[in-house]
Amino acid sequence: MDHQYLEDFHPGQVFESAPLTVSAAEIIAFARQYDAQPMHTDPEAAQAITGGLIASGWHTAALTMNRLTTAGFYNPAPGALGLGCESLKWPRPVRPGDALRLRLEVLNVRPSATRPAYGVVTNRFTTLNQHNDIVQEMISSVMIARRHA
Amino acid sequence: MDHQYLEDFHPGQVFESAPLTVSAAEIIAFARQYDAQPMHTDPEAAQAITGGLIASGWHTAALTMNRLTTAGFYNPAPGALGLGCESLKWPRPVRPGDALRLRLEVLNVRPSATRPAYGVVTNRFTTLNQHNDIVQEMISSVMIARRHA
Repeated sequence: MDHQYLEDFHPGQVFESAPLTVSAAEIIAFARQYDAQPMHTDPEAAQAITGGLIASGWHTAALTMNRLTTAGFYNPAPGALGLGCESLKWPRPVRPGDALRLRLEVLNVRPSATRPAYGVVTNRFTTLNQHNDIVQEMISSVMIARRHA
Repeated sequence: MDHQYLEDFHPGQVFESAPLTVSAAEIIAFARQYDAQPMHTDPEAAQAITGGLIASGWHTAALTMNRLTTAGFYNPAPGALGLGCESLKWPRPVRPGDALRLRLEVLNVRPSATRPAYGVVTNRFTTLNQHNDIVQEMISSVMIARRHA
């Protein structure tokens, strides 16, 4: 897939990924390393806390990023830099066996105030499960190179 | 360490973690799985893009979470649930060898509007490197159980 530049993004564009099924083993492995709380690491303890194992929100965020870079619809030119999130919400938990997919909407495209060879693209990333419940909603901005910089 | 409940948190409290040194191998391993872009996975390619390898912002976020749960100053009672972030910024990159530490400030403590046995604590998480540069700043809210629920 060709690299994408600032000029390739327009407000209103929508990209959708293929689904990705999340396993209990992956949920536990991520959490042991990065978010070691019993609702994420111990299926038995999680039963009493959250009605069963749920994924760390940071795992959902990382999978969402991974979806982006591997799903084949997002391949910005090297140098693209995430600037952070204006909001990041986990309205519902991710459970083992859930099939997640990502819907990316381009909200805004503007020149960079500080780096003339770049612009800033603001996107809404909505991560949905197989029931179309929203498990993560994130609005975030990324600095992307102009094509003729 | 004893579990913490809503009553243990007060606006103005500050917690600081011990430092954690991040290696190139860890930066690459995380990025291969969750954010496979050359500036995070390939030290040679990263030289031209970002002056050397930099960590995925999601890696910094995950390490910040891990710091919290293992640093010994944050141990909420089971059932504490992160609700998301009001903002999450990566003003500077994390590079191999950086020693990160976390400063957590409690900004606000309020009852939950929907779950009487819980309250919502809003915190500012500032992740700093060994030069005291801010590499991540996050404001986020977590639902925490009351002691006598």
